[in-house]
Order: sequence, then C-alpha cells, then structure tokens
Amino acid sequence: MAPVKVFGPALSTNVARVLVCLHEVGAEYEVVNMDFQAKEHKSPEHLARNPFGQIPAFQDGDVVLFESRAICRYVLRKYKSAEADLLREGDLKDAAMVDVWTEVEAHTYHPAISPVVYECLFNPTMFGVPTNEKVVEESLEKLKKVLDVYEARLADHEYLAGDFVSFADLNHLPYTFAFMTTPHASLFDSYPNVKAWWERLMARPSMNKLGAAVAAASKA
Amino acid sequence: MAPVKVFGPALSTNVARVLVCLHEVGAEYEVVNMDFQAKEHKSPEHLARNPFGQIPAFQDGDVVLFESRAICRYVLRKYKSAEADLLREGDLKDAAMVDVWTEVEAHTYHPAISPVVYECLFNPTMFGVPTNEKVVEESLEKLKKVLDVYEARLADHEYLAGDFVSFADLNHLPYTFAFMTTPHASLFDSYPNVKAWWERLMARPSMNKLGAAVAAASKA
Repeated sequence: MAPVKVFGPALSTNVARVLVCLHEVGAEYEVVNMDFQAKEHKSPEHLARNPFGQIPAFQDGDVVLFESRAICRYVLRKYKSAEADLLREGDLKDAAMVDVWTEVEAHTYHPAISPVVYECLFNPTMFGVPTNEKVVEESLEKLKKVLDVYEARLADHEYLAGDFVSFADLNHLPYTFAFMTTPHASLFDSYPNVKAWWERLMARPSMNKLGAAVAAASKA
Repeated sequence: MAPVKVFGPALSTNVARVLVCLHEVGAEYEVVNMDFQAKEHKSPEHLARNPFGQIPAFQDGDVVLFESRAICRYVLRKYKSAEADLLREGDLKDAAMVDVWTEVEAHTYHPAISPVVYECLFNPTMFGVPTNEKVVEESLEKLKKVLDVYEARLADHEYLAGDFVSFADLNHLPYTFAFMTTPHASLFDSYPNVKAWWERLMARPSMNKLGAAVAAASKA
C-alpha cells in the first residue's frame, strides 16, 4: 500500500503537527517538500490540494485534505487502535474533553505562544526581521495567564483531557517545541505541573521520530 | 430527563453556535443567563465550569464543558440520528471534509468576518466604541479573498463539506448572521453561489428557532 503523502517542509510547525500524529499511530508516510521561494505552494497543482495555497496538504489515495488539525483527526481516526486511540470518539465524555482542550490550544494557547515563536525564532532566523520586544512582552503576559490555568488543570490530571494522552496534548507540541528554543524557555520552570506534562510528552517515541525527520529535512 | 444547560446570553454569537446545533438535533435545553455587568462569568461557580471565565459553558449531568465548537461536537454526537448526522464520523472521508471546512471557518473565515461584526455592530451598539473604518476596510479585503475560494467550492458542492449539510456549515451561522445586519451585507451579492448557500442555511427550521430564542432573550 502506498504511504500517505504530506505536502510541505517537515521544518514547518503545522507540518510537524501532522507528522507527530502519523508517528503516534505508526503510519508510513512520505513528505513531499514544497519550494516556497519558487512559490510552489501557489502552483495550480497545490491550489488543487488547498485552495488557500497554504501548507500542509495531505493525500491518501483519492482523499485530499488541508488544515493541519483536520488532517490529524483523519490520521488518528483511520489508524486508530487499542494502543493509539487519541480522539476517543467511542466515549462521549472522553471525546468531549479531548475536543475542549483541542479548542483551548487553537483559540487560547496558540494565540499567546505563537507570536513569541515568530518574533524570537522565525522572524530573525528565516525572514531577517528583527524581534519586536513589545509583542514578545505582551504575548508572554498572555501566556502566563494561560499557563496559570494549565497548571491548575494538570495538578489533578496527568494530561489535558484527563488521565490519558490525547490529540489535545499532541496539538501543543509544535509551537511549544519551538518556544523551548527561544530565550524565554525558562518561563515553564515557574509551572512545575506544566513542565512535568511537557517532559512526559517529550519522552514519547513519536517525538524522537519527529526530531529525526526534522534533522533529515534540515540536511536536505 | 432534565434538559441540558447552556450558560451565557442567547444573544452571544458563540452561544448561538451551540443553540443552532441543539435545534438541529431537536434536543431540549435551558439557557442560564450570565450577568456580565455583575461579573457573573468570573464567579467561582462559573470558573469551575470554564477556568478561563468565558461563555458559553455547558452542562449535561456530570459532563461540564466549555469552548463553543467542542460543545457543538458533543451535542451533535450525543443526539446523532439518521436524520441529523452532522459530523459524519462513521465515514472517514465525509468526516474529514467536515473537519477541513470546520477548521477553515475557525482559522480563515472567522478572522476575516469577525472584526467587521465587532467594529460595525458590537463596538458601537454594546460598548459605545466608534467603528474603526480602517479595520473594517482591511477585514473586508481579507473576507473577499476568502469568499473567492468559497464561491469556487460552492460551484461544485451544495454545502462546504460536500452535498450534505454539516457542522462545517452551521459553524458559519452566528457571525454571518450578525454580518448581515451591518452596512456591508451586500458584499455577498457579488458571490452568487455563497449567497445561495447562505439562503439554504437560513431557510432551515433551526434558524427560525434561533431567531425566536434570540428575540425572547432580547425581551428578558
């Protein structure tokens, strides 16, 4: 069976979100790189995959998808097993808690952490744009308020949705991983429950595989 | 059986998202109003429901949820029937297309349309803040690009995920409904497929019920 295809550089945070899910369920995949400088993501071939001309896109036979979180749900559903049931759609309450904390990532955590990653990492290293310290400072203040809530939640639960790892946790990986390479990584030291949760996630075999995939992409 | 509870004013767009789903599946519910001026949404009782102190929150017996899109998924799963299967989780491909366009609403459509609604409707009528025309103009430019993609998509499909109505469509209701009361409603006239799709959605009985619920809330 041909492996599924993921379109977009493995170094992209939104692509990494998909790769982590593929690793978690043990699915074979192929990354099809996109040359941004050649505007390959705006080519007719890619616009047929994603009419907004963004990455990642995804192909599994005649199923062509975009939007990283939607691709992840497809992957986690298709390759679901007793060992890897990360959406828990068979259990009404568990599935709801997975959804709640997946939405919190998208609408509350991501808007607070991603500007720090852009300002401290992507802008200076990839786009030659200097860090806007005011944006960083304001975002860190927002992030602290979010982490206060996470700290309390993770005092009573090993993972965000409950005492089981889920898509809600995995969703946090790409941007948190990037944040940890910025000068503000030590912020997490003030939140011991969050830090312990993060270390539990980082110890998962799927994260080692992601590191290897990203390293291979860096050399390519 | 006690009806489920939705916490937050029915007039809120994010509460309306939940109410539309409850109407679609024919579930009984009770709206528990929250007094924002009395900061009821920041009370210990409400923070126990939603640690971020926002609305809506939701209760079904011992299941307590927040984040409107997560609450909707719970409602659509719990009350799923042959007539109302709006997530299509039993079909891998259909479910994926529902998820893709649900994510498009959250990450592309919403960021373009919601500033227009805030600037032209919420800010002047609810908060006494004058409309920032520059924000409106920039957001309308973004929205036009989004509607170009929707227009093409809806040329080949009756609804966003395919030829069946789904959660992806319903998700667009609250902010589009509010947008249609602004001076920019006629923008949709330039997109005949989008306009026809919108009229199909507005003709659904769930929308009539929402109108009645909002009217009752306005009088309360």
